[in-house]
Amino acid sequence: MAKDFSTREENYSQWYNDLVIRAGLAENSAVRGCMVIKPYGYAIWEKMQAALDKMFKDTGHSNAYFPLFIPKSFFSKEAAHVEGFAKECAVVTHYRLKNAEDGSGVVVDETARLEEELIIRPTSETIIWDTYKNWIQSYRDLPLLINQWANVVRWEMRTRLFLRTTEFLWQEGHTAHATKEEAVEEAFTILKVYTDFAEKWMALPVLTGKKSSNERFAGAIDTYCIEALMQDGKALQAGTSHFLGQNFAKVFDVKFLSKENKLDYVWATSWGVSTRLMGALVMAHSDDRGLVLPPKLAPIQVVIVPIYRKKDQLAQISVHANNIKDALTKKGISVKYDDRDTYKPGWKFSEYEFTGVPIRLAIGPRDLENGTIEVARRDTLEKEVLQMTDIENKVEHLLLQIQENIFQKALSFRDNNTFSVDSWEEFKDVIEHKGGFVLAYWDGTVETELAIKEETKATIRTIPFTHNPEEGKCIYSGKPSNQRVVFAKAY
Amino acid sequence: MAKDFSTREENYSQWYNDLVIRAGLAENSAVRGCMVIKPYGYAIWEKMQAALDKMFKDTGHSNAYFPLFIPKSFFSKEAAHVEGFAKECAVVTHYRLKNAEDGSGVVVDETARLEEELIIRPTSETIIWDTYKNWIQSYRDLPLLINQWANVVRWEMRTRLFLRTTEFLWQEGHTAHATKEEAVEEAFTILKVYTDFAEKWMALPVLTGKKSSNERFAGAIDTYCIEALMQDGKALQAGTSHFLGQNFAKVFDVKFLSKENKLDYVWATSWGVSTRLMGALVMAHSDDRGLVLPPKLAPIQVVIVPIYRKKDQLAQISVHANNIKDALTKKGISVKYDDRDTYKPGWKFSEYEFTGVPIRLAIGPRDLENGTIEVARRDTLEKEVLQMTDIENKVEHLLLQIQENIFQKALSFRDNNTFSVDSWEEFKDVIEHKGGFVLAYWDGTVETELAIKEETKATIRTIPFTHNPEEGKCIYSGKPSNQRVVFAKAY
Repeated sequence: MAKDFSTREENYSQWYNDLVIRAGLAENSAVRGCMVIKPYGYAIWEKMQAALDKMFKDTGHSNAYFPLFIPKSFFSKEAAHVEGFAKECAVVTHYRLKNAEDGSGVVVDETARLEEELIIRPTSETIIWDTYKNWIQSYRDLPLLINQWANVVRWEMRTRLFLRTTEFLWQEGHTAHATKEEAVEEAFTILKVYTDFAEKWMALPVLTGKKSSNERFAGAIDTYCIEALMQDGKALQAGTSHFLGQNFAKVFDVKFLSKENKLDYVWATSWGVSTRLMGALVMAHSDDRGLVLPPKLAPIQVVIVPIYRKKDQLAQISVHANNIKDALTKKGISVKYDDRDTYKPGWKFSEYEFTGVPIRLAIGPRDLENGTIEVARRDTLEKEVLQMTDIENKVEHLLLQIQENIFQKALSFRDNNTFSVDSWEEFKDVIEHKGGFVLAYWDGTVETELAIKEETKATIRTIPFTHNPEEGKCIYSGKPSNQRVVFAKAY
Repeated sequence: MAKDFSTREENYSQWYNDLVIRAGLAENSAVRGCMVIKPYGYAIWEKMQAALDKMFKDTGHSNAYFPLFIPKSFFSKEAAHVEGFAKECAVVTHYRLKNAEDGSGVVVDETARLEEELIIRPTSETIIWDTYKNWIQSYRDLPLLINQWANVVRWEMRTRLFLRTTEFLWQEGHTAHATKEEAVEEAFTILKVYTDFAEKWMALPVLTGKKSSNERFAGAIDTYCIEALMQDGKALQAGTSHFLGQNFAKVFDVKFLSKENKLDYVWATSWGVSTRLMGALVMAHSDDRGLVLPPKLAPIQVVIVPIYRKKDQLAQISVHANNIKDALTKKGISVKYDDRDTYKPGWKFSEYEFTGVPIRLAIGPRDLENGTIEVARRDTLEKEVLQMTDIENKVEHLLLQIQENIFQKALSFRDNNTFSVDSWEEFKDVIEHKGGFVLAYWDGTVETELAIKEETKATIRTIPFTHNPEEGKCIYSGKPSNQRVVFAKAY
């Protein structure tokens, strides 16, 4: 199964696409730009959702659900927002079909035209702030800490499974606060949640910082982000947390009476991560033999494969396998015992290697004699034969090791692909020939950022938070700069 | 809070609507027919989802996700299906907006018209069977047991919060099988899951059976259902499970190679429950003082309210309250300790009564002296003073009792409102003056069913499964009939 697909070296983009489809994560659908998330891929997404949802709730947030549709006029209200979002979107204009007169099928019933067109939400700030207007009167109603799990639609011209699709799944948090300080703090709380999730669950090291004004969310005062590095040296924005100031409160007229009995506009944040994280997960860790999944997000953490010639051998092996399965299950580890007789062990080995199951246990007749078991780990492809005694604790420990190893490997990769450069020539050379994160001085202007993008396709991924400004000169303009920012080509 | 809203007696419909909005479950949005599910309502829905999702997985199903959009032509393929679903639906015709030339906002960009219109899914059989075509080649690929949690849109003219909304949330299962028998068995497996969920989680007794051809799902061979009775004597269809035969496999050309090496069309089922269940939950159990929630679905199962005059009393009470909270939390019971000093105990009592928290614990200075605690249950409104010792076990036991009592109350109500009638006059009288489930003989024809509906607004809710056919005469036509069916006016 793993044999006839591209290596990363040959064609990284093709490797990614093949892997996503053939490992059963997702595929293209009959609708241009929309994907089908297949059961194995969805199971990973469910694990991501569960972990994030718990982190949101532990930080005081509740879930709610707002309409899929947004009246067209809502988008005109926030000037920057409409520029960023309202242009490439799905527009509902009619609410009825009818049988075609020539019997050729169904056609749109032109008499059923909506008075005002509805937009499928590309993001929900507008409909949510229109709702918050009725929920917020006094400081007692604040803070409002709400999250929504939903599908959104952005009409993308060039799509790639998980990374950029017309419809995608995400969570979007929308919070309302009495003070600017509290809203900024909330945006940072979530940035921390995203960072922890990326690093501890996805085993994905991320840089955090602020976006430049050019890369900022349409309608935000500040956008904070987590940025990860993929194996081809390109960056991927994995999550954003926005401080929205009073922008949306002003356009939707959301005021509150403060403790001091003064009317003021409400302060806001919004933040989101999406099924794009699935793409990041695949691209960061997988290899030419297939998926590599961090144990914490693997739908199947351990697979047990029996190796036998005769039925009675299988029966004996199954006794041990089922005992091990029970012991692991009791520890909350998800185990599959694959005793199908329709496939040979070799086929199963490559199947589970390809689909990234972190640990494979194999039991054969010789193991029965010796009281042993073969333990293979997916991340390093190492195998060893262990005594079967206490195997559940050994496996539990190994899963933690694998999780940590995958993170460390990605971290080393990032370290080895992060470059500090001080001249324009060097900058261009690194961006073109090495890729990776490039730390360089920038003069802080949009003009310079756009000029650099124009010449190299690299953008400012993030402006790191720093307490120790260092003086330097912008690599492009030569003007003074007080800190290095992170450039990269990006997904 | 509970004072100024309609009683069930005065205006059942108004009572329901007020309750849903004022208890914080849902409200109407700026988009006609679409609701906002508020945090408290969504928390109940999340509990429903978690319970159902586990039941689906325990019966071998996996989740996946299919596109929101369905190409218009897909609907023309299954003749019955198009009649049932394609007519009242949201149609996407364009994919871009642009700034209006007169600066008045944004308008649809007429140059960005889709070649083929896209329908927002009203249900996903068509897009899913179009996908299954590529997933199924041989009997080895079967059964395919997939569920999807999603939003769907049906352009309803008259909407009511939860019961009938243009957009709603649901789960839709879509399974594929090698034999008819297996598909029918699947449809029954799910009917059992729905029945168990309704009765054990929602405390809602349901009748099960088959739909008449007139009430059948558009495209199904047979529709099985669970039907519940609301307090106003109207029935509510709470879930359906469809045996689809080979209808969708035929129109989407989904064939498989059997073990016997023969090509055949795949057999199918589909099944769903929606946020409509939220409406059923409210209407079945709540009373004139507000919500009554079965403990298993209550976001807050126990609330603790301190009663005090002085700060030092609160401090003492809080020690006990926090101990109790910890002990209950350890048992997996969700507890809120409401020690806010901005609200008085009386206000809190009516707040939690109104929002249906199953058990309220109150601790005052006298309780501290006596080592007692006041325990109030929402379902019966009974209060008693108990010794604080071992309170966590008493509360745990009481929650079970409340769950059972709410179910028994609903069951008694249904028993008292189920009538067996044998004449047309009696039928009309009961339907008009009493409501409830009416068991009557029916001749099995659509004509009779429609005539009865026309005259009385009652429809056949379900044809009970029976092993003991009883002969009788149709109440309307006088023709022979071999079993009673269940009539009612319905939501």
